[in-house]
Amino acid sequence: MAREFVRATYRIETAFPLDRAAAALAGEQSSGTFVRVHGETDELRDRHLAKVERLTPLDESPTPSLPGAAVPKGVTNPVYRRAELVVAFPLENMGTNLPTVLATVAGNLFELREFSGLKLLDLDFPEAFRVHPGPQFGVAGTRRLTGVASGPMVGTIVKPSVGLTPGQTADLVRTLAEAGIDFVKDDELQADSPHSPLEDRVKAVMRVVNAHADRTGKKVMVAFNISDDVDAMRRHHDTVLAHGGTCVMVSLNHVGLAGVMKLRQSSELPIHGHRNGWGMLTRSPALGVEFAAYQKVWRLAGVDHLHVNGLRNKFWEPDESVVRSIKACLSPLLGGYGTMPVVASGQTVRQPPDTYRLTGSADLMYLAGGGMMAHSGGPAAGCRAIRQAWDAAVAGVPLDEHAKGHPELRAALEAYRE
Amino acid sequence: MAREFVRATYRIETAFPLDRAAAALAGEQSSGTFVRVHGETDELRDRHLAKVERLTPLDESPTPSLPGAAVPKGVTNPVYRRAELVVAFPLENMGTNLPTVLATVAGNLFELREFSGLKLLDLDFPEAFRVHPGPQFGVAGTRRLTGVASGPMVGTIVKPSVGLTPGQTADLVRTLAEAGIDFVKDDELQADSPHSPLEDRVKAVMRVVNAHADRTGKKVMVAFNISDDVDAMRRHHDTVLAHGGTCVMVSLNHVGLAGVMKLRQSSELPIHGHRNGWGMLTRSPALGVEFAAYQKVWRLAGVDHLHVNGLRNKFWEPDESVVRSIKACLSPLLGGYGTMPVVASGQTVRQPPDTYRLTGSADLMYLAGGGMMAHSGGPAAGCRAIRQAWDAAVAGVPLDEHAKGHPELRAALEAYRE
Repeated sequence: MAREFVRATYRIETAFPLDRAAAALAGEQSSGTFVRVHGETDELRDRHLAKVERLTPLDESPTPSLPGAAVPKGVTNPVYRRAELVVAFPLENMGTNLPTVLATVAGNLFELREFSGLKLLDLDFPEAFRVHPGPQFGVAGTRRLTGVASGPMVGTIVKPSVGLTPGQTADLVRTLAEAGIDFVKDDELQADSPHSPLEDRVKAVMRVVNAHADRTGKKVMVAFNISDDVDAMRRHHDTVLAHGGTCVMVSLNHVGLAGVMKLRQSSELPIHGHRNGWGMLTRSPALGVEFAAYQKVWRLAGVDHLHVNGLRNKFWEPDESVVRSIKACLSPLLGGYGTMPVVASGQTVRQPPDTYRLTGSADLMYLAGGGMMAHSGGPAAGCRAIRQAWDAAVAGVPLDEHAKGHPELRAALEAYRE
Repeated sequence: MAREFVRATYRIETAFPLDRAAAALAGEQSSGTFVRVHGETDELRDRHLAKVERLTPLDESPTPSLPGAAVPKGVTNPVYRRAELVVAFPLENMGTNLPTVLATVAGNLFELREFSGLKLLDLDFPEAFRVHPGPQFGVAGTRRLTGVASGPMVGTIVKPSVGLTPGQTADLVRTLAEAGIDFVKDDELQADSPHSPLEDRVKAVMRVVNAHADRTGKKVMVAFNISDDVDAMRRHHDTVLAHGGTCVMVSLNHVGLAGVMKLRQSSELPIHGHRNGWGMLTRSPALGVEFAAYQKVWRLAGVDHLHVNGLRNKFWEPDESVVRSIKACLSPLLGGYGTMPVVASGQTVRQPPDTYRLTGSADLMYLAGGGMMAHSGGPAAGCRAIRQAWDAAVAGVPLDEHAKGHPELRAALEAYRE
């Protein structure tokens, strides 16, 4: 194998000289221990040691962002320097084994006391990682399955999150299908539960979806939440497939990488990747992972759709971060591996213009809950209003102007003010 | 199913009235959305809504610990109140499906703007979770396989982390076996790599281990790092088993829950759980998960050994946290599910007395790298010195006193000062 590297970019914060802290990280995550041991030769170190490729000083802080950070001996008034750091990890150390790549770039390093802050910002994978299958459907495959040739796929989430019986869920999906929606997903809280066993829900919902498709030619894509152990996910996938379903959903962080890779291996359906728990990994500015790095791992693993929040969402995430996330999913990785971003959380007719203006793309899913379902004219009017808002956005026409000839949009603009 | 609940304890921080913030979390993670929607009845809410069971005010902060937190309308000078919160999530919503339980107790809630801090402190599982297999070997099974009837299992990690060929690794294991060690593990960076394919390493190492066992009756337990995709882990497990190996290791956070559960399902060997990446989940005081909650999930999934750092470790973690972690692994969960804590990181002959005094237990693995291997008398003397330190600790004899009749300990105490 040629000398290839996985490059990881970090934002670090440390009371140590920057180059010394960077070397500690590179050593710990390749061939280091705290005492030079038996068997460690210079040739071996040279071949396997991770390399500090770039170190760009940023700002400073008088206080440490994280607890437990050490201060160099003799320093009584430490300054915590921040920097952007790029480390190259030899592929020779880990191959293309994704869990072990993550153990290398996102393992024990977060515990190093040399750092009072450490965040993984991005990853750069070499060609060898093309061994991973990537998304089987992506944007084009999802458009084909839903029959939506252009513009966003308009969708919603089954709400309430939990509590509906399979029959009640099917009734709701009937209403949504008749409203003209493209996509419906289970909530992440609703998988295979006592009050709504997955198989019963699939049967009840797909009866409605298939009947609607027979009547109208339009098959609503329903992402059934199959998150579970590996065998159950496989069984659930087969159930969805057998009943004519066109999508399965998994909670990526809680199923985990190997489980999702196993599902992808034999999946015949798009995998809708739900990132719940993501806030835990990213919300601290001083610790964790940025979405730029995170989404690449899941794209390699084969996720077709990936949640990104939406502009002016009901969560903590600022708009510029959401925009970066949408763009990231649509940027080529190793020349491909495109994943469809799923825009959701507090979305109404208000956000399409800015979403389109800031990302330049309508290759996305646009999910609205209350923002569509609670329309004064009912769900069908709510769905039409969302499409009208997107038509206006893509055409560059202000919403208020477009609303003049579109009463559903007008009613929605009156109901959802900002 | 009777009305059972998974109870989750959080530390929250919020600018909102505590009861209102708590209700927002409970609603979001059971039946809530931001507009009351079609199909949501009072009866359904009553049955499925998560319940705030306890809310204990703690201290206050003038500034938010995390970015993106909202402030109630009209409040210009917010105070961020902290509290401990217990929420009961109906089992009816999720069953015993572990990934979905985590999507519920550790999902989107970390993104809620009502909170400027949110950490999952503990989980309480009802009896229904006994469906999960738990550790197959635990402390007793690991003692049986290693022939260590009492006291800690003394071990080390193959270092350098990466770079040794299978033959070099086997040579090192021979030295360690002859030194009298009980346990050896691969580094988490070393799995199935180009320079040390797992199968070749297993063959080379087990030849040494088996020959040593034939000669002495003592079989060293080697935890081979099989972290990989599901099928590869199964294949690697079978390879280890076929060559007489007695342990497999996985990087829990990067393989993920479903992958580890799948391995456990058909495993015939103890699973050594490496928690690398854990710092990312726990090092922020305002965000993430405490070990008390984390370890319960992995014990249900079936991990036999679980890393906990050690006293005065080279990482950021304070001693009181390490002590809590060791005790947590040894505390019964649903009456059993005992997992052996693995004490490691910067350990020498210096820490056994405090480790024993503070935890009251020698039911643990005690791993030393440089702290044993770099002993002036060589690895065998290093291993004896560690055992002598533990003998002194368990007998309550000061190290310096015990060293009088034990030259290896005396030499180690001189070399490793604090």
